[in-house]
Amino acid sequence: MSDLTLALDAMGGDFGPQVTVPASLQALERFPTLNISLFGDKNSIERYIPPSFKQHKRLTIIHCSQVVTTHDRPLTALRSRRDSSMRRAIDMVAKGDACACVSAGNTGVLMAMAKLILKTLPGIDRPALISILPTLNNKPVYMLDLGANVCCDSDALLQFAVMGSVLANKVDNIAKPRISLLNVGEEAIKGNAVVKQTAELLKEVEHLNYIGFIEGNQIFDGKTDVVVCDGFVGNICLKTTEGVASLMISHLKQASESSWLMRALALISKPFLKKVLQKVKPDQYNGASLLGLRGIVIKSHGNADQHAFFNAIKQAVIEVEQQVPNRIQDSLESILLEKIC
Amino acid sequence: MSDLTLALDAMGGDFGPQVTVPASLQALERFPTLNISLFGDKNSIERYIPPSFKQHKRLTIIHCSQVVTTHDRPLTALRSRRDSSMRRAIDMVAKGDACACVSAGNTGVLMAMAKLILKTLPGIDRPALISILPTLNNKPVYMLDLGANVCCDSDALLQFAVMGSVLANKVDNIAKPRISLLNVGEEAIKGNAVVKQTAELLKEVEHLNYIGFIEGNQIFDGKTDVVVCDGFVGNICLKTTEGVASLMISHLKQASESSWLMRALALISKPFLKKVLQKVKPDQYNGASLLGLRGIVIKSHGNADQHAFFNAIKQAVIEVEQQVPNRIQDSLESILLEKIC
Repeated sequence: MSDLTLALDAMGGDFGPQVTVPASLQALERFPTLNISLFGDKNSIERYIPPSFKQHKRLTIIHCSQVVTTHDRPLTALRSRRDSSMRRAIDMVAKGDACACVSAGNTGVLMAMAKLILKTLPGIDRPALISILPTLNNKPVYMLDLGANVCCDSDALLQFAVMGSVLANKVDNIAKPRISLLNVGEEAIKGNAVVKQTAELLKEVEHLNYIGFIEGNQIFDGKTDVVVCDGFVGNICLKTTEGVASLMISHLKQASESSWLMRALALISKPFLKKVLQKVKPDQYNGASLLGLRGIVIKSHGNADQHAFFNAIKQAVIEVEQQVPNRIQDSLESILLEKIC
Repeated sequence: MSDLTLALDAMGGDFGPQVTVPASLQALERFPTLNISLFGDKNSIERYIPPSFKQHKRLTIIHCSQVVTTHDRPLTALRSRRDSSMRRAIDMVAKGDACACVSAGNTGVLMAMAKLILKTLPGIDRPALISILPTLNNKPVYMLDLGANVCCDSDALLQFAVMGSVLANKVDNIAKPRISLLNVGEEAIKGNAVVKQTAELLKEVEHLNYIGFIEGNQIFDGKTDVVVCDGFVGNICLKTTEGVASLMISHLKQASESSWLMRALALISKPFLKKVLQKVKPDQYNGASLLGLRGIVIKSHGNADQHAFFNAIKQAVIEVEQQVPNRIQDSLESILLEKIC
């Protein structure tokens, strides 16, 4: 790995520097050629840096006077948060001084700022949010868009398919990622006009390994590598996944408190359950990428802990090494060429 | 409970009479004034009727020469399955000889047949599929539409809200059911044009207790009684819920087979886990209603077992007793009156 610099928004997320700083230090130890620029309130950041790291050569703190809050609206934040940790981290990527940026802050503002400052790749209308979900065969599945675009036409969904395919290919070394469209049934007659049109477009692109429609339960069956949908459906689907997992965990807790026998059984089965929950815990799958930009932007979950934020940083490192934006551009050009020929 | 007759499609679902017949007999024992007409292949049905039930006064078998298959398309089935068990069960409701119909067969065909034969209530454009999901506080939440309408405008979503509210009020005795709209965020600026327009409509109807937007994870938090969405989102969301539950069960199995220690722990924790899984198992929540028709139609899950199909019959009995279609019509009239005044 050659030297690479990441710009991190230290103030984003529910816990800010308390989580982002220790995760950054962990990443510096894990990746010996990584440089990190931490953007945010200098005092707050330094509070979480132990003496041994104070003079770290690969760590730079850049003070910012503002923070993007969860209540900020994209348009307002674009105008009034010019000295925010999020904005300045993205600026550093735009200037070419950092290879990627990571933030656990306000998703809407991050997307708006990233799009305005970094711009989209040629052939991409709007960036999309992509992340991985667990499956039955333990191989993760990519899903996009997870909320960047509430309304999408078939051209947008085709672009998402290209981007998802590149990411699965470059990050997970899947030779021909299996792409599917999320729908209310597997048959060609099912669904709304947009998914039907997109299916026709995808069938025509030889460059992509389109396998057809899938239903909500099939996301997790390990038979697809990339699930494509609009951001309205994708976001609701992702949040539903989190909701069901929380529901099951809550019922486990309730049951374990219902009687002395259940308490005892819950205690005995703890290591067993821990192993299972680890596999479906969202932390393992943290770090959603904002794809389609002329730069790499990773969105970490708002309530990410140190482990989760570290995973988001790791995702940024991998995407830099694999030059994901360049690969997306190459793929788009191949498809355009395919259409012309 | 006064005498009531149900028309049951004995052939629908993955298991047909093997499940529907024992569930019907169970219902006859549970409800002493219930009469059941079982539609389907006479020989197949009789195979599952023990000698003690052969001459049961409240059980009638009506032979049908056809069956609706899972591959049948709605329009084709409407024309060519006139002597199917599903069609004839609906016909019996239309003639006024049965109070409700239950089927575990092809959802698309059931909806198309029910709409054509029974017709929608005045003020309802299209029927909607509604079911209940589990929540953190153990009180179920109603969700609609679950797939009857892939495209919906704000008027349709308003009608869904009215129907969901009536069902939660009449079946679960909730005085003022809290109605929410499924969206990608809670703030008013979030979402697509249709949900925003629907929110405005719902705010104006004093008759309804509209509480605002909710996200996917909030479906299960027990803070809403009725979740309204279009059938595309609702179906994917419901299937995703099933997918996550299956994923967790599969990981539990995998972990329990990974070592002798895990095997032992899994065995010991079985009664504990069983208690938890029972709470989130879809069987407990089986029996989706097709609301908005001039009659009661209950759709049971295709892979329903006896317990699940019995629950669907029970749901039909409750809706008949509570005169759900009449109540929906009254509510719609009140809202229309509210608008005029």
